[in-house]
This record gives sequence, structure tokens and C-alpha cells, in this order.
Amino acid sequence: MTGTDVIVVGGGVIGLAIAWRAAQRGLSAAVVDPDPGSGASRTAAGMLAPATELYYGERELYGLNRASADLYEGFAAELEAATGLPVGYRAEGTLLTAWDAADLASLHDLHIFHSTLGLSSSMVTGRELRALEPATAPGLPGALLAPDDHQIDNRLLHIALLAAVRSAGVDVVAARASLRVSGGRAVGVLLDDGQELSAGSVVIAGGAWSRQIAGIPEELRPAVRPVKGQTLRVRAPGGPVLTRTVRAKVRGNAVYVVPRAGGELVIGASSEETGFGVEPRAGAIHDLLRDALAVVPELGEAHWESVSTSLRPGTPDNGPLIGATDMEGLLMATGHYRNGILLTPITADAIAALLTGAAVPETALAFAPGRFAAAAFGAGR
Amino acid sequence: MTGTDVIVVGGGVIGLAIAWRAAQRGLSAAVVDPDPGSGASRTAAGMLAPATELYYGERELYGLNRASADLYEGFAAELEAATGLPVGYRAEGTLLTAWDAADLASLHDLHIFHSTLGLSSSMVTGRELRALEPATAPGLPGALLAPDDHQIDNRLLHIALLAAVRSAGVDVVAARASLRVSGGRAVGVLLDDGQELSAGSVVIAGGAWSRQIAGIPEELRPAVRPVKGQTLRVRAPGGPVLTRTVRAKVRGNAVYVVPRAGGELVIGASSEETGFGVEPRAGAIHDLLRDALAVVPELGEAHWESVSTSLRPGTPDNGPLIGATDMEGLLMATGHYRNGILLTPITADAIAALLTGAAVPETALAFAPGRFAAAAFGAGR
Repeated sequence: MTGTDVIVVGGGVIGLAIAWRAAQRGLSAAVVDPDPGSGASRTAAGMLAPATELYYGERELYGLNRASADLYEGFAAELEAATGLPVGYRAEGTLLTAWDAADLASLHDLHIFHSTLGLSSSMVTGRELRALEPATAPGLPGALLAPDDHQIDNRLLHIALLAAVRSAGVDVVAARASLRVSGGRAVGVLLDDGQELSAGSVVIAGGAWSRQIAGIPEELRPAVRPVKGQTLRVRAPGGPVLTRTVRAKVRGNAVYVVPRAGGELVIGASSEETGFGVEPRAGAIHDLLRDALAVVPELGEAHWESVSTSLRPGTPDNGPLIGATDMEGLLMATGHYRNGILLTPITADAIAALLTGAAVPETALAFAPGRFAAAAFGAGR
Repeated sequence: MTGTDVIVVGGGVIGLAIAWRAAQRGLSAAVVDPDPGSGASRTAAGMLAPATELYYGERELYGLNRASADLYEGFAAELEAATGLPVGYRAEGTLLTAWDAADLASLHDLHIFHSTLGLSSSMVTGRELRALEPATAPGLPGALLAPDDHQIDNRLLHIALLAAVRSAGVDVVAARASLRVSGGRAVGVLLDDGQELSAGSVVIAGGAWSRQIAGIPEELRPAVRPVKGQTLRVRAPGGPVLTRTVRAKVRGNAVYVVPRAGGELVIGASSEETGFGVEPRAGAIHDLLRDALAVVPELGEAHWESVSTSLRPGTPDNGPLIGATDMEGLLMATGHYRNGILLTPITADAIAALLTGAAVPETALAFAPGRFAAAAFGAGR
């Protein structure tokens, strides 16, 4: 029976970043995941977009998003320096294009909301939009430019984090884990091959599957539900098509196109489909391509690379669950829904602080896991 | 230096079927291909459709198609018996659905053309269409039912042919080959690793790449040009969506959906794109999905499996090149364009007959490779 200070259940970017930060603070750590990085960390588009992902009524979440976005450039640079691996951080900004006049009016409202929060954004005309991004469709009436909404290549990020934790001495165990509880406190995990690992603390970072991890008492199971996310990857044969991330709402459907430095483009959309199925639907791929082509027609010439579908962990208030639970030794770092990549640095800092008795970033305090009563979330899930 | 009676350059279904038939007739044979079955044999949808692939002005080609279709059931049964492997031959027939009234009128004309050729087909109303295939879109005005247009699973066919030739003692060599000529006659091939193989006859069955095979004298290079073909494969989660192959022309774009016995559906279209690029374009995938969903809306729920793009060998008259050339020992079996899977049995029979001095099927005589003067096809290709 081996023992570490902390075991992280889940080897996506959040779980790995937690283990990395913990190891940097002198803790021994292990990460357990049957297939690290095969979930939402892989499917994500890597947008770091507190401004264009801002929703009315989510001010506290905005504060957390903003704080993590502010950490990102340093986090990326530190990770690249530690590993020698690129993570594709790009700071070109994001354009939220309007589809029609009504849409343009709502972007004006969003711009005003940005101003009240001290967020920098500006409106550009259709002509200015085409000057900034000549590949956008003619006739779009205008856009909101969010210069501080950046991006990272989430797949490169995961590769770099895996290298970083390994060189920091973290054991990455390819197995499924259930929680072991003894005397009312978390004491480690049981692997699916029967092996027991012991730890002072266990952090649940299993994304959409966090609620399915066996051994967590019913009243502490995290209030996450799986929400499907899907991205396509294409590559333009003639070089970069876009400089900035372009987002739009086409006839009511949100779509985004994220240009990678290497020429790849990631196409995705908001989706509200729930459930554990991850097979990409032909109809969803059709709709994604239709909407992306409407905004950036030149994507029609791009070469198809792949489709990726995974599950994001949604929560009742769309905010993550970050922090200690009512069980000693059991912490949560899940429920990041649309913002998993963005919230990786601050989540890792917050959990590492809790594990070492340091001060937790203030913006994270509102996202303690205990804020949903188990009863309110409902049984039978 | 090894020697065989015949070397077939090209390990798609046609090349393999030729080698199989040659071996059955007592000849020693080898097949040379850098990656057997990676071209049009893999991308094809496997429709065996002389009636719904009938074009005015292609009566001779129809005769060849019909003759090969008539061979297919026996060919498939023989191959399954020889190998114990399934090839997915299905005889449920094909529906060519009309999109609008004008389209319905042209299907009536095709039906009359069928009658003059003694081909069985019948018109069905929109209501009858929905009774036959409830998953077709409501509102389609009618269809032509071609009961004798069948299908085969082309990927299973290739696997079975590979097993058949191997158990018949045919050597399948994974290499690129150029033609060796000595004293004015074909004497074998030179492999890209420098090895020389000798043979009494060399059969060019390289599909769209047949014209690129080095060593063929300019005046004998086959008049084939690459024409892109693309298919999508999806799988319906709730079981079979269609019983028959459904074809349509949606707003001028031909599309087809071929239901496999295992629940897979193959979606494809006619394409006239030429050139050697085989990367699937995002725009082409969008158009395919759009047109297929218009005819069979339920496909939207199907799970995406894969996209496949390859090159078909087009010819000036859309007919294949089957037979001896003006060079002793050099034969052609290429240029099958849209009908490569369909024409596999008759092409193999014709080439095997030529190799053994037996009678060539009469319908194949019109497709001798010499019918295009090199000058007429043009230099510089």
C-alpha cells in the first residue's frame, strides 16, 4: 500500500494542473484516470473568453473567469519554460460578429455591460470587421471586438501538463478509481484492478463523470450533469484564414471558429444536449458546418481533419465546484462546464492553497462545493 | 529474379479479382500495390446500379454494366464460399426519388428508356415511397423503383478478395511498380526497392493512378484522369433507417444513401472535381450532409463514423479500358470511373480470358484500350 499527500481523480487539464501546483508546493501527488485527456480537455476549443462568454446574472462567475484569464499568460509561459513544450497561447483577441440588425443591437448592449464591469471591448462596423478579418462573410453588419479574449491550444496544454507533472514526480496511474472512506474521512482510492492507494487528501476532478465516481456519499456527490460539446477540426490549404477567434450567433445558433497558429481551425458551438452519449451526430456536424460556413465561407475549402465529442460538467448555476467538502480529506474541482480550460490556472491555485493551508484566491470562495443542497439537485440522477 | 505468368499492377478490387480468376485458370500471378485497397475500392459505396446509373448515349456501357450485374450474385456467393467471409451482397433494390415535379417528369422519361431496354423499373407515388421507405422525407412527389439495382459492401469485398487471392497462391507485394519493357514487349515490373519481377503479362489495374505508372510508352498510357469521389459513413443508433438504397437529385445535386446490413449507412454524391488531391473538403461534407438530410431527415440522428475520399479513373467516354494493348504482354483494366465495383466480375473474366486464350465476354469487346488515339486525348497530362 503506497501513500501520497494527495490523489487527484481525473487527468484532464484541471486534474493535472492541480497535481502540478501541489507538487510545486512540496506535496507528493498522484493522478488517476483510465485515459488522461480523453474527455473535454481534448474536445474543447481553448477559448479564454471572459468577455464573450459573459452572461447577464453571472457576475460572480465573470469575476472568477477574469481572474483566471489574468493568470493565463504567466501560467502558459511557466509551463512552456518548465517543459520546453509549446502550448499555443495566442493574444489576438476575439470578434463576436452580429448576424443581423437585432443581433447588432444586442452586441451594443453587451458592450455597455462590458463598460460597467470595466471590461475593454469596442464595436466595429461591417467594413471594419472585413478589414480586420477579410475571410468573414460580406454583409455582416458589425461586430464586438474583445481584445482580451485570448486562446490556448488545449491539446498542447494537456500534453505539456502531462510532461510537467511527470517531471515533477507525480505518478499518473491509468485506472478507474473509486473513493475510499474510513472513519468518516477520505483516505484514498480503490483502483479497478483492486489496488488501494492511500492519500491525505483526494481531489475529485472527473469533469462530467465526477458524479459517477463510486464511494462518494450521496449527500456529497457533486451536482454536475453531462452536457455534450462538439468541435470539428479543419485545416485551410492556403494558410491562415483568420487571425482572431470569430464567434457569431447564426439564426440563433452560437458558432465559433478558433484559428490555431499552425493553420488548423477549430469549429464549435454551444450545445445544451445532455446525457452520457458521446457519438457525434451527423445532424450536429451538418449544423456546425452550415453555421460556420455562413460566417466564414472560405472554410468550405478547408480540409476536414476530425470531429471530437465529449461531455462537459454542467452545474445548476453554471459555476464550478472548487474547494473542500463536508468530508475531511475530500475536495472538489469539477463543474467547470463551458470554462474548464479558462479556469484551469485559478482552480489549480485554489486547490493547492487549500491543500497547503495557504490563502485561497478570493474570487474562488463563492464556488465552494457545498452551495447546492443535495436535496435541491434532486435524487435519481 | 522471380517470374510469374502475370503481374497485376494495382491491388484494388479489380486487380485482385483479375489475379483470383487468373489463378483459378492455372496461371501463376502476383499483385503489386503500395497499399492495396486504399483507393476507390475503399471509398466506393458499392452500388450495383445499371438502371439508376444509366445515362442517355451510354448504351454500350449499359450493356457491360448489365452483364456484370448479372454475374454479381454468383460472384459474391463463390467468393464467400471460397473464403468463408461475408461480402454483404443485398438485393433489395434501389429507389431513385424525385425532388420536385420536374424531377418526377425526368424519372418518367428514364422509366420509359428502361422499358425500351427491357429493364425492369416502376414508378411509385409519394405515398407508396413513404410506405416502402418510411424514413424518406414527407412531401417527395414520387420515385422510380429499380428492383435489380443491388449493392455489395465494397470494403468487405476487398477483404474477401485479398483472402481469396492469398489462398490461391497469389503473391501480394506491397510496393510501387513501374513497367519493364524489353525488345518491344512488357516483361515485368521494377519495384521501388530496386527489385525486378518478371512475368509473361502485365495488367495495369491502377485506377486513377494508371496513367502515372512509369515505364508505359507515351502512346500507350491509358486515357484516365482522376475524378474525386467522397463518401461518408454513419450509423443509426436505433437500427436500420432504410431497407433499399435511396438516390435523389436535390436542387440539382445527386446524392445517395446506401443502407448496409449491419446498420451502417453510406452517403455519397456525384462529383466532377478533378485532380489528385484527396483531402476531404469541409464544404463538400457540408453539402453531402445537407442533401442527404433533405431526403432522409432521420440521418441527422445517425452517429458519424468516417469520411473517405479517393480518386476514380474517368475516361473520355466514361467507359473502362479492358483488354490487350498494342504492346505484347501489356493489358489494361482501368478507367472504370463510377462503375468500378459493379464491373469487377466482368473485367476479371475478360482479362482472365485474354490471358488464357479463351473467349472474351462479348459486351467487353467495345471497351478495348486502343479506342482512344493518344493524340486525341492530348499531351501534357
